[in-house]
Amino acid sequence: MKQFVEELETLKAKVLEMGALVEEGIFHAVRAVVDRDAAQANQVIENEHRVNRLQVEIDDLSVEMLALHAPVAVDLRFVAASIRINTDLERMGDLAVGIAESSLSLDRMARVNLPVDIPGIAALVQPMVRKSLNAFVTRDAQLAEEVLRSDDAVDKQRTSTYDRLVEFMEKNPSCIRQTLDVWAVVRRLERIADHATNISEDVVFLTKGLDVRHHAEMEHRSGQE
Amino acid sequence: MKQFVEELETLKAKVLEMGALVEEGIFHAVRAVVDRDAAQANQVIENEHRVNRLQVEIDDLSVEMLALHAPVAVDLRFVAASIRINTDLERMGDLAVGIAESSLSLDRMARVNLPVDIPGIAALVQPMVRKSLNAFVTRDAQLAEEVLRSDDAVDKQRTSTYDRLVEFMEKNPSCIRQTLDVWAVVRRLERIADHATNISEDVVFLTKGLDVRHHAEMEHRSGQE
Repeated sequence: MKQFVEELETLKAKVLEMGALVEEGIFHAVRAVVDRDAAQANQVIENEHRVNRLQVEIDDLSVEMLALHAPVAVDLRFVAASIRINTDLERMGDLAVGIAESSLSLDRMARVNLPVDIPGIAALVQPMVRKSLNAFVTRDAQLAEEVLRSDDAVDKQRTSTYDRLVEFMEKNPSCIRQTLDVWAVVRRLERIADHATNISEDVVFLTKGLDVRHHAEMEHRSGQE
Repeated sequence: MKQFVEELETLKAKVLEMGALVEEGIFHAVRAVVDRDAAQANQVIENEHRVNRLQVEIDDLSVEMLALHAPVAVDLRFVAASIRINTDLERMGDLAVGIAESSLSLDRMARVNLPVDIPGIAALVQPMVRKSLNAFVTRDAQLAEEVLRSDDAVDKQRTSTYDRLVEFMEKNPSCIRQTLDVWAVVRRLERIADHATNISEDVVFLTKGLDVRHHAEMEHRSGQE
């Protein structure tokens, strides 16, 4: 039991470490787009292997914990959730790389002043990533619900940005490629927010869902004994 | 042990059932776009709850199997993989709904003849979905590797479609909205292919990866005994 508790702490630390790496990737990828900074973009792309290595470590540790300790009830659900959340994190890392790649693609074209607030959208999305992971490791349903509520603001920004960018392209058809690259950045940020939402839904289920699934939980436990 | 084997069969059957629902959703969503058939699009949107219900069932069953039977080695990895694959399937279902929504959006605009082969791309993607799931339930690494190889063809189609659509928009800026909706359909098909690729990577790891991770596996087992 002591070993399981220690491994649980290691698991949480690794999830937070991966989360920090992913956040850093998003931050630098967005800066690369805004500042047209190829060096930052390349750094995000080079760092991808660190995210991937952590994914393998988290996956190995989760499966090892299931095999060694056969946890039940909420501990089992926590470890199972970490398998899903790990996947979300890895895909957020991929999306940060995608943003960095869009930034490099934009570098090869003439600079255009587009009606889009990338830093503003990023400022909505980045806290969602951190909060969803903090909610997970501290099993804080309230914080997770806060993340779920922020997703609406991201969707609104996405829709209004879309309308502005389409209008811009209609008036400036020679700038369509640049505009689509910037639109791809906005979409990827929105998808990162979606992953933070997935993580938060897992947390709400993990912390509150046990009530609604109480019957099934009881069956598990009586079967276990 | 007999019960575990039975539950494993149920798990496989549910994964295949969910896969069939998702495939059906993709098929009808693509038909809705191609035939401008709002009824088919609405059906896909209405069927989403069936996919979501199966997701909960598969998740519950996987976690129950871990709790009741504490499987080890390859059985443990199979159940852990089913948790991840379940997430992939649910997101493929979401993407089919997204395609159906694009189809409804296209219905509200003038019809344009766009330089894109949606049925052709769908014909590449749909078999990837089926093959990846068949590879999973039969633990067939060769079939999974076939899926991984097909992903290149999808990427190629995506890139050439992008170039053609950008050129079309440059020449026809009044048709940008329709073109972007169709482009969103292509992107979603590509993302469905990416999920099939994720599933196939899980299968390769599940069936072949045990060798490279042999050392860790042994540790689990000795700890278990």
